[in-house]
Amino acid sequence: MIELRNSVSAVLPSASATGVARPLDAAGVRVTGGFWEERIRINRERTLRHGFDWLTRSGTLPNFRVAAGAGGRYRALGEDQGIVLPFLDSDVYKWLEAVGWELGRSTDPGLASAAAEAIVAIEAAQRPDGYLNTFVQVVAPGQEYRDLSWGHELYCIGHLVQAGIAWHRALGDDRLLDVALRAVESLERELGPAGREGIDGHPEIEMALVELFRTTGDRRHLDLAARMIDGRGHGLLGAGRLGAAYWQDHLPVRDASTVAGHAVRQLYLDCGVVDLATELGDANLLGAVEQRWQDMVDTRMYLTGGVGSRHRDEAFGDPFELPPDRAYAETCASIASVMLAWRLLLATGKAAYADLIERTMFNGVLGGISLDGCNFSYENPLQRRTRRAVADSGNGARTPWKVCACCPPNLMRLLSSWEQYLATAGADGIQLHQYATGELVVPGAAGPTRLAVDTDYPWNGRITVKILEGPARPWTLALRVPAWSASATVELNGGEKSTMSGPGVTAETRQWASGDTLVLTLSVEPRVTVPDDRVDAVRGCVAFERGPLVYAIESADLPAGVEIEDIGIPPDARPTVTSRDDVAPGVLGLDLPAIVKRGRPAADGEPPPVARAVPFYASANRDGDAMRVWIPQVTAPDGR
Amino acid sequence: MIELRNSVSAVLPSASATGVARPLDAAGVRVTGGFWEERIRINRERTLRHGFDWLTRSGTLPNFRVAAGAGGRYRALGEDQGIVLPFLDSDVYKWLEAVGWELGRSTDPGLASAAAEAIVAIEAAQRPDGYLNTFVQVVAPGQEYRDLSWGHELYCIGHLVQAGIAWHRALGDDRLLDVALRAVESLERELGPAGREGIDGHPEIEMALVELFRTTGDRRHLDLAARMIDGRGHGLLGAGRLGAAYWQDHLPVRDASTVAGHAVRQLYLDCGVVDLATELGDANLLGAVEQRWQDMVDTRMYLTGGVGSRHRDEAFGDPFELPPDRAYAETCASIASVMLAWRLLLATGKAAYADLIERTMFNGVLGGISLDGCNFSYENPLQRRTRRAVADSGNGARTPWKVCACCPPNLMRLLSSWEQYLATAGADGIQLHQYATGELVVPGAAGPTRLAVDTDYPWNGRITVKILEGPARPWTLALRVPAWSASATVELNGGEKSTMSGPGVTAETRQWASGDTLVLTLSVEPRVTVPDDRVDAVRGCVAFERGPLVYAIESADLPAGVEIEDIGIPPDARPTVTSRDDVAPGVLGLDLPAIVKRGRPAADGEPPPVARAVPFYASANRDGDAMRVWIPQVTAPDGR
Repeated sequence: MIELRNSVSAVLPSASATGVARPLDAAGVRVTGGFWEERIRINRERTLRHGFDWLTRSGTLPNFRVAAGAGGRYRALGEDQGIVLPFLDSDVYKWLEAVGWELGRSTDPGLASAAAEAIVAIEAAQRPDGYLNTFVQVVAPGQEYRDLSWGHELYCIGHLVQAGIAWHRALGDDRLLDVALRAVESLERELGPAGREGIDGHPEIEMALVELFRTTGDRRHLDLAARMIDGRGHGLLGAGRLGAAYWQDHLPVRDASTVAGHAVRQLYLDCGVVDLATELGDANLLGAVEQRWQDMVDTRMYLTGGVGSRHRDEAFGDPFELPPDRAYAETCASIASVMLAWRLLLATGKAAYADLIERTMFNGVLGGISLDGCNFSYENPLQRRTRRAVADSGNGARTPWKVCACCPPNLMRLLSSWEQYLATAGADGIQLHQYATGELVVPGAAGPTRLAVDTDYPWNGRITVKILEGPARPWTLALRVPAWSASATVELNGGEKSTMSGPGVTAETRQWASGDTLVLTLSVEPRVTVPDDRVDAVRGCVAFERGPLVYAIESADLPAGVEIEDIGIPPDARPTVTSRDDVAPGVLGLDLPAIVKRGRPAADGEPPPVARAVPFYASANRDGDAMRVWIPQVTAPDGR
Repeated sequence: MIELRNSVSAVLPSASATGVARPLDAAGVRVTGGFWEERIRINRERTLRHGFDWLTRSGTLPNFRVAAGAGGRYRALGEDQGIVLPFLDSDVYKWLEAVGWELGRSTDPGLASAAAEAIVAIEAAQRPDGYLNTFVQVVAPGQEYRDLSWGHELYCIGHLVQAGIAWHRALGDDRLLDVALRAVESLERELGPAGREGIDGHPEIEMALVELFRTTGDRRHLDLAARMIDGRGHGLLGAGRLGAAYWQDHLPVRDASTVAGHAVRQLYLDCGVVDLATELGDANLLGAVEQRWQDMVDTRMYLTGGVGSRHRDEAFGDPFELPPDRAYAETCASIASVMLAWRLLLATGKAAYADLIERTMFNGVLGGISLDGCNFSYENPLQRRTRRAVADSGNGARTPWKVCACCPPNLMRLLSSWEQYLATAGADGIQLHQYATGELVVPGAAGPTRLAVDTDYPWNGRITVKILEGPARPWTLALRVPAWSASATVELNGGEKSTMSGPGVTAETRQWASGDTLVLTLSVEPRVTVPDDRVDAVRGCVAFERGPLVYAIESADLPAGVEIEDIGIPPDARPTVTSRDDVAPGVLGLDLPAIVKRGRPAADGEPPPVARAVPFYASANRDGDAMRVWIPQVTAPDGR
């Protein structure tokens, strides 16, 4: 139904790849209003500019000019603390990828000029032999490809490749892709079939190489990706300081049945594995990733979609080890989880993957960036005990930039490509996975299909899809019904059509006429969520959700003298939906009856206390406060 | 009442120091049977030999010969992982301190010969100018005192001083003390009043210098200790990578009201602060430590006495951040806590300090070493979810030695000096703080006092104290009544004397005659312990204790197919005391009625399941298993 060549999409399986759904050409997708339009606009108008500013002042971009021989010293934001990370180049590449998607959507002279400056610097820094890594070139000359375990050289090339592909697909501009191809040639000579064995301590190159094969058609790129993936689990990296599982070298990717080690590493790796599996038609390889994904979702994932329970090693924990206060839940891990679920959705079509994309985007990902688009968190805990805790330990504190600044530009590229995740096309029609007001155009042999979506999602569960134009033959329009929706109704052209009792997909096949309208209504009744009893860290607590949003109470909403840890909830607590324009326009909150376990006693005649919950993603926007998602249920009279 | 000069004691306040209790000369203290006799004997007969073996094979001791110019390369157990720690010398010093106390108690040709080998190597390694640090001398020559933040040079000198003092006091052998004095002269030139300002990133030198002053009477040593202590909190170390609180440089020691940062660093520092405060008679300085100690006990301490909630930075967490599974609770932090509480007990006489010594020794400290004395844990979590969790992440796994081997020799020196912690003397008599079968001789101007203690503590709460000899004048015998004992009775010469209803100290003043016998009976009824409701991580759980012992259930005691996470306890569960000779001879366990929440269903006629709890210190001695101290209470029929 769709044309693949130069389609705007970060993931674009080749014509011969397996998979039941294909990405749309995002050039035909426009989000024009509502929740996501605001997030995308702020990313474009503020976050990307903010990013360029910090890439410049931190030294990250100027380091390319230093590598090109312009003089000056190598800089890093962490140098005062003795931290000069070897993978800072990737921050520029991720920012450029984001800008590529944005400029493809519409022109912006300011962004274009900033990007041109970056591209020129990158071109100048690349050595004639194709090698490119400013850290090695300036700080550790002669160490090219010597420290594969920690050096992140392949990781950086991977991000360069992805940026090059974004500019190629969105803009037809191949300057970055040419740099990337030369860098990959350098890599191929060193670690390709004619070179030595070696893999990178941080996966990323794998998915980039598969995507490069999809762009160039050059089989060597796919083979090199396979070589990198098959090389894992055979001790090429060894135990290092943190154990072989830290970088997924403990088992071959076909044999590991659970996620393990550093969360971002595991998820980036599995993105590449899915990409390779679909290109090879290797169901066994795909199945291994599906098994790991299920293990993650069943036993090692936070309610927000966040993963990576441990600060130490930034690692997945044991099953059900999910502390809310010390949740690491790195923003990049949430982003990587979205990237992986997208690939699995394309490969299998299963609604569960789109469900997780939604949960993770609305909570784990958006929690990583302030509402103003210019402050970022690295860790995303579900509880901050005290205001002081944030200041002291930086646990979940949002700051304008980071010494390790992987998350901010990763957020940028995801938000700038978010339109790509909304829908797919298959042989029989179109599938809507995420709901946002806007328009979709899907070209096809029998003529284009155009849809208009109108919704106030996630605040309202009503989604209206109108057919603007379509081929003169029957096709199927499929809409995801999220697992959180207790019920769903579908109306076609004003008449009641069906009621679904379970989650999944509701699909309508017919010869659609212009003006046909399908209305899906999901239940956004507030939900009281009880944790699995094996999650020790939140036993006796409940959380509150509404639609795709997880809620949190914040000390900013408590009366003076009452702390977050003083608050309990009666067992029969039912939340009330309230407007929270004071937090941000349009935000709906949940008010909960509360029991104050200690602290200031209630005065005579004072109304019973209320705990006011705001969406998790909107928390910590009012002077970095104490917060919690899981709230203790209070049953005994002594407040226990 | 006691003679201070050359008294066998690691802590020996000068005659002019403030403080209400004085340490005994441990040369007159003998533990001859029961629980502690076994632990002390195993330490002497097995652990110390095991330690010498590993100090040799790891390269730690041979490195002194390398530094002396004997050739060969610098070695470290972690070198395969790229880890060569700069403070390995201190492991030899701590081991030598332990051997010093042991040889003072009785001769042992094997230990004496091993120690002589070590002392000769140390003497040979010291430079003529007094400088001694094998890492700097061999690996980083020219860097003497250049990296005070991370280099641990003063930390190593501190342990050398403590070893030297042990050999001086216990054996009258001054070879190590002479080396230490020359090293301190080198330090004095560099960082003394005539040198530059600087403090060590890891406290330890402070208490060593105060003790050196107590040994030599040289005021310069006390002044240098004060200089190191007063230097903290003024940015000499700065924020580093982990923040200024990590190494207690965030606030001057007089101003910090809470413990903060790296737990061992905080506690070693406060040991030195108490030592200095008592020598200076500075009540304000002492009060600051008492306030921090109370904060720690009230808000940041595990039931085992363990402290340091976080793996990341090995740090105290926020108040009530006490995850049982990810408890760091480093063995060295428990040891440091015992050392600090001992100093505070000497300074104030308060029974609460002796209570914490007891809780920490029986649980947090002894949990750090296997029953056979030859395997050590670094972290001491109160929950291990799965057997695999131990193997995968090393979370609480006991191994024969460590890349960072601070804990094993620290355990050795504490166990070899444990007799020093049992009792004190004051102007009016003798105070027994810890209970062990043995004899005490306290010399005095009016003649020696001799006591015999007989008890099956901690298995039994009956402690018999018999006066063997005493001065012909009234004096007071005081016995601690632990806070955990709901009641206590005291009998004098067979007649009921008194019943205490609360914790503290029971004291009897009289002119004691030879053969007078006091029997203290404590209540060792099993206790069900409910956590503070602010400890989120164990909400809805209870723990079981008996006497000073914390108990844990282990999967080794569960039927096949039932996992630790499947076990709940009914709200009215009352434990039964049972013999657990299968774990170790003499051990008493607690059997608890259990509810199996999932897993294998009970067969017809099968008796109701029992969860068998063993003392925490005895856990993980049967093939590193899943374990938990805090057990969920199950109330609802669905097992939640």
